[in-house]
Order: sequence, then C-alpha cells, then structure tokens
Amino acid sequence: MKKALTFDVGGTKIYSAIINENGEIISEIEKNSTPNTFDEIKSLFEQIIKKYENEVDVIAFSTCGAVNNQNNGILGSTGNIAKDYPKMQFKSLSSKPVYVENDANCAAWAEHITGASKGCANSVMLTLGTGVGGGIIVDNKLLKGKNGAAGEMHFKMYCDKRRKCTCGAWDCFEIYASGKGLKITAEEISKNQNITTYDVIDGIKSNDELMVKIFNRWQSDITQGIIGLANIFDPDCFVLSGSMAEFVDTKKIEKNVNDEIVTTPTKIFKAQAGNYAGMIGAALLAFSKGGCLG
Amino acid sequence: MKKALTFDVGGTKIYSAIINENGEIISEIEKNSTPNTFDEIKSLFEQIIKKYENEVDVIAFSTCGAVNNQNNGILGSTGNIAKDYPKMQFKSLSSKPVYVENDANCAAWAEHITGASKGCANSVMLTLGTGVGGGIIVDNKLLKGKNGAAGEMHFKMYCDKRRKCTCGAWDCFEIYASGKGLKITAEEISKNQNITTYDVIDGIKSNDELMVKIFNRWQSDITQGIIGLANIFDPDCFVLSGSMAEFVDTKKIEKNVNDEIVTTPTKIFKAQAGNYAGMIGAALLAFSKGGCLG
Repeated sequence: MKKALTFDVGGTKIYSAIINENGEIISEIEKNSTPNTFDEIKSLFEQIIKKYENEVDVIAFSTCGAVNNQNNGILGSTGNIAKDYPKMQFKSLSSKPVYVENDANCAAWAEHITGASKGCANSVMLTLGTGVGGGIIVDNKLLKGKNGAAGEMHFKMYCDKRRKCTCGAWDCFEIYASGKGLKITAEEISKNQNITTYDVIDGIKSNDELMVKIFNRWQSDITQGIIGLANIFDPDCFVLSGSMAEFVDTKKIEKNVNDEIVTTPTKIFKAQAGNYAGMIGAALLAFSKGGCLG
Repeated sequence: MKKALTFDVGGTKIYSAIINENGEIISEIEKNSTPNTFDEIKSLFEQIIKKYENEVDVIAFSTCGAVNNQNNGILGSTGNIAKDYPKMQFKSLSSKPVYVENDANCAAWAEHITGASKGCANSVMLTLGTGVGGGIIVDNKLLKGKNGAAGEMHFKMYCDKRRKCTCGAWDCFEIYASGKGLKITAEEISKNQNITTYDVIDGIKSNDELMVKIFNRWQSDITQGIIGLANIFDPDCFVLSGSMAEFVDTKKIEKNVNDEIVTTPTKIFKAQAGNYAGMIGAALLAFSKGGCLG
C-alpha cells in the first residue's frame, strides 16, 4: 500500500505524519510551531522530508493559501505566515513527487472520501474557525476555478458597509460566520467590548438569555449564507468543520435552509474526518493523482 | 450536418426554429403566445413537432424552470406559466430524441460555445431581465448540482429583511439586480411610486442627477453580487445578458470587482449570442449529448 509524507501548514503550527492509501495515519504526528521566516520554514520542510522520504511514495502538503491548478505552488499572498512563503518551490523539496493543495480543499476532500459527505457527488464544506474556509466538490471533483483560487467564502452579507472583513472588503460571510464574527456579533449585541466567544459558548450551556440571543444571531447569519450557496450549487450536503462547528445546531440550520431555498432539499452535517482531515485529504488527493506532479 | 427543432418556452412567448450544428438558425422563427393551460401548451408543441420532426435529428427545448439531470423533465414549479407545465412528458412528444434544459443554462452554453465566453473553461452568465437567471460553466461543463437546479441567483444582499423577493424569501440578488430591482431602487431613492425603469434609462442618457444616482446604486448592487460569485468560482469571466444588460458599464464593474476580490482577476463581458441564445444553446447541448436522451 502506498504511503504519503503529509504536512499541514498553518500560520501557527506545522504538523506532519505518514498516511496510507486508506487515509490512516500510520506514524506519530510531529508538531512544530510555524517558524517566522521563509528560510526557517523551508529548512523545517527539508529536515522532515530528509528523515522520511525514503519510506514514502509521495509528499503531500495541505497548506494555508490558494494553490494553483498544477498543485505545485501558492497563488498570491496568505494571511498570517511569512510574507514570502508563497514563493516556496515545493517540487524542489524532494526527489519524490510533491503534491500541494489548499487546506480547506484538502479537508473537503477527506470528508468526501472518508467522512461526512462520503457518497455525495456535490457538497460544500465550510470550516468555521478564526476565519472561514471553503472547499466545494462538484460532480466528485474539487472546484478550483481558472487559477485554483475558487471556494473563497467572501460573498456579501450586507451591501452597506457594516463590518470590515479580514480580506479588506466589507461584510463578507467570513466576518459574520467565523469565530471572529461571533466575537463582533457579541460585542454589538452586548455593547461590551470585552466579551469573548468563550463567554458566549459558556452562556448558551447555562441558557443565559443574552448569550443565546448572540449565538442565535451568529447561527442565523451562517444559515443565510448557506441558503445562497444551496441555491447556487444545489448540493447533496453541506459539511461544517472547524473549531466553531461543534456548537451549531445542524438540524435547525437544515430546516431553515430547506424552508427557504428554491432548489432541492439539502442536508447539513458536521465534519467526521477529524482534526487531521487536511493531511488526510492531501494524501488521498496525491494518491488519486498518482503523485504525477512531482 | 445535423439539425434540431428547437423551442424557447417562456411565460409569455413560445418560439421555435430549426438550428444546425454550427448554431445557425436555418428556418423562420415561429412566434406564439404561451397558451394558458397545460393542454394547449402540449398541443402547440405537438403541432409544431408534427410539422418539422421529419426534417430534423433531435428536438431541443430551452425552457423556464429548473430541468432535471436526465434532461427530460422539469423540477418543481415555475413562475408565470401554467401551474402543471412541470408535468410535461417531453420525451413522449416525438419519436426523435428530445433534450430539455433550463433557458439560462442554454443561453450560458450558447455564449460558451459561440459567444462572449467562448474559450473560457469557467464562466458565470447572469441574465438581467424582469428577473435574474444564472448559468454557470465549470471546467467546460454546465453546473447542474445534485438534481439539476443549480445556478439560482438567490443569495442574500442583506440579512435584515428589506425587500421580499419573487421567490418568497428576503433580499435575494434577483430582487436587487433585476429590472424589478431597478424599479424598487428607483422608488426608494426618488420616493415616487410611479417611477419606471424607462424613466431611469432615459434619465441616465440625459445625465439627470437623480436617475444617475438610482442607476449607479443598481449597478453597484450587481457589482456586489458579482464579487461574491467571483470569490466562490474564480471564473475566467462573467457574461451579462438579458434586456437590462445593455445599459450596464462592464468596464466599471470589472474594475470594481477586481479591486475587491481575493481570487484572481476576472473579466466582465456583455452577451454576444443574441436574442435566440436559449434556442441555440439548447440545440448545441442536444447535439453534444448526441441526442441520446430521447
């Protein structure tokens, strides 16, 4: 059975592990903090690759940032990682084939092959974390667009400039549906700048009226975004992943979405591929392409 | 060269013509008003098919309503045509193969093969008429979704219930970007219930300050919607078609979209496949499928 040395590259952590064709993690997961500079990041990659490349068939990266359609490099800039990280020449890191894909796309693929959206030809995954990631499967393939940047969840929730999004534009879905969005919603409704997402999550557990109101507003915003996506894609299902997804009421969202859409009924699931879905998806994608891009 | 007898079925008119494999209309275009009842519509189809079916290889319908993935019937209900029209058994109308597709999808396909988006693997067509239609091409194929209903342009422009959309939900793109949306925008800004879209269009030609303000607001709403779609699809281009599209400033929209998106630069074109794009697209789709669904 083929094996992949797999990396999950984020702004704060870089994980690595060996994964087999079944999507099973068959090594210890090595966890490193993301170094500050390009050279240090590259050197960390090289060091781990040197250690394991003889044991594997392919190297697979699940990374922050949009990845090109050749699956060998990053398009444009990424948020909170070294500014010149997008210049990384991934193919040059190993003599083995190297495959690179965006982390949300990788996670969506893991859900599609082994997780919540298994068996669904058309699905939309939303990663609700500090920000919002998107991975869209159309007809059993990742939606990449002309250059590979598709699946960005930056569509408007309002057109009258209320909240500035991290992308620089106004009122994107991300700045309402993310953890950061929940914090802003909480500030707006409570009129308290010091309120945290933990306060809201704790509050709903004890049925605190104000916290429930805040949470429902946030969940309603997620629902409104999903309605638009359901009308655009007519997908079999949505998969909600990420640290904030565990708190949402998928049955309630599903009902409200299906009550309003003009397309055909869809389903809302929580992710099932686990915390390492990105690495698993990257490995499975690399295997499915035969690692031919190295 | 193969020929298709092609219909364009709308709420007010039913057109028909014979179209060849080059997408050329090679007959007179027969124009009928859409009858009120299912039986009368069916009988009109039968009468025209009887007259021409021996001359053609396939029958192709470009129709209002979402069409299933088998391209032989309509999903759910459609707006302003006989309530039971969706029950039409299209295959039973002829001994020749019969192919059915949604009118916006057909028009998008015509633009893709012979029009403004020719050569673009990924494009989004928006038909700006009384309502808004959508046809999305992903990787040289029509985006249909799990049941065929994809491409509905009912995503939110606001989440605080300002305008009721024709679909019954609130604040969809359609109720801002359509001709009806322009009328509502004009009423809101002018505080005059009797203002018409003609007043606005005439007014911008004479540079009337109020009318320019109304028009710019409408065009800005279209721009905001396109920004979201560009971030979701990373398409090569958008094609604007329909009666309202001729008035928009595509260069201005393109600049504003590209200034704001997080994906890669896209282009905005006006449609080029003409008034009969629906019929042309239906014929070309039927040929490309080999008419095998009859």
